[in-house]
Amino acid sequence: MTEWHFYEPKDGHRLPHDPLNAIVAPRPIGWIGTVSADGVRNLAPYSFFNLVNYRPPLVAFSSVGWKDSVANIRATGEFTWNLVTRDLAEVMNASSATVPAHVDEFTLAGIEAAPSRLVRPPRVAASPAAFECKLTQLIQLETKEGDPLDEWLVIGEAVGIHIDAAMLEGGVYQTARAHPVTRGGGPADYFEITQEALFRMPRPA
Amino acid sequence: MTEWHFYEPKDGHRLPHDPLNAIVAPRPIGWIGTVSADGVRNLAPYSFFNLVNYRPPLVAFSSVGWKDSVANIRATGEFTWNLVTRDLAEVMNASSATVPAHVDEFTLAGIEAAPSRLVRPPRVAASPAAFECKLTQLIQLETKEGDPLDEWLVIGEAVGIHIDAAMLEGGVYQTARAHPVTRGGGPADYFEITQEALFRMPRPA
Repeated sequence: MTEWHFYEPKDGHRLPHDPLNAIVAPRPIGWIGTVSADGVRNLAPYSFFNLVNYRPPLVAFSSVGWKDSVANIRATGEFTWNLVTRDLAEVMNASSATVPAHVDEFTLAGIEAAPSRLVRPPRVAASPAAFECKLTQLIQLETKEGDPLDEWLVIGEAVGIHIDAAMLEGGVYQTARAHPVTRGGGPADYFEITQEALFRMPRPA
Repeated sequence: MTEWHFYEPKDGHRLPHDPLNAIVAPRPIGWIGTVSADGVRNLAPYSFFNLVNYRPPLVAFSSVGWKDSVANIRATGEFTWNLVTRDLAEVMNASSATVPAHVDEFTLAGIEAAPSRLVRPPRVAASPAAFECKLTQLIQLETKEGDPLDEWLVIGEAVGIHIDAAMLEGGVYQTARAHPVTRGGGPADYFEITQEALFRMPRPA
């Protein structure tokens, strides 16, 4: 007989930690590069990120509060997304430090930048996959009562895609080869994805 | 010296398979339960799903094309999200079959439903975590030129949360204990998340 913990978030979760980000997990990490209107580079990881469309390729991330990345994207219309791998996990984490807008996280965390081809923000040179993106929609999230929140969903079109050819096998991108890092719950949980975790299920006819 | 495969999606990817959903991977699965205005239950997995806010808890999934789930949610304003575990992977996959709107995927795939408390769509009885959700925003995605796409982003507020108490350790939700299944690339790749994949990095001060 399953014992259920049921709660209505409006009344609180009645647990030592909010379980939400441990339940919807692990999640791809939105490691977002931007440049401010006056040229300061910014790089920050977002815990709520995903692909949302194939053609054209659209990605979305949500910012809890109006952060530097969002301000930069609104000002310039451009950003990069960079894949976090196990080798990059520590510098990605360093880039999440809360610092003033004039601080360049590439420099702060000692992360080598590579120039983009179609947008101004650079990509992370060592990320084996990166997208150059142009803003398509910037949406203020709302409650079910329709009240606006200080939470922002940034949606962008990937106009240029970089793939380290070593990630391809017969031209097919191998997800686990990069040892991608995904986000779990609490302030500190991450999951490293390896080939052992892979299984295949063909879609039903 | 890294060899890069660079492409602009507008010109095609020049690979045997579109690498997009293998790169932004693995992804949480949006296993979405709905009920049509005339009472037909629907259950379908969505490959582009995530948490997008903590307070209130908001989840979002994107539908490539106007699907039954989206029509039901627009009509009723309600849905459930259900965690996919390794034990449920095969029936989740069976629920992805393309069938007419009058077909109930709970029945089709032999999935036991449990009643929700605050919304009409049921949840998956065997999912160790499930959210009862109310629609907050239904957004038509756009290209960077501002052209509307037949792609829909459904955002909802989780008003009720069910957790199998066996997933809690000292009240803390253990992501890997359920062996959650996440989505990889191509038509068939999935990743099973286990405790071995977990590592911890405290946030920088």
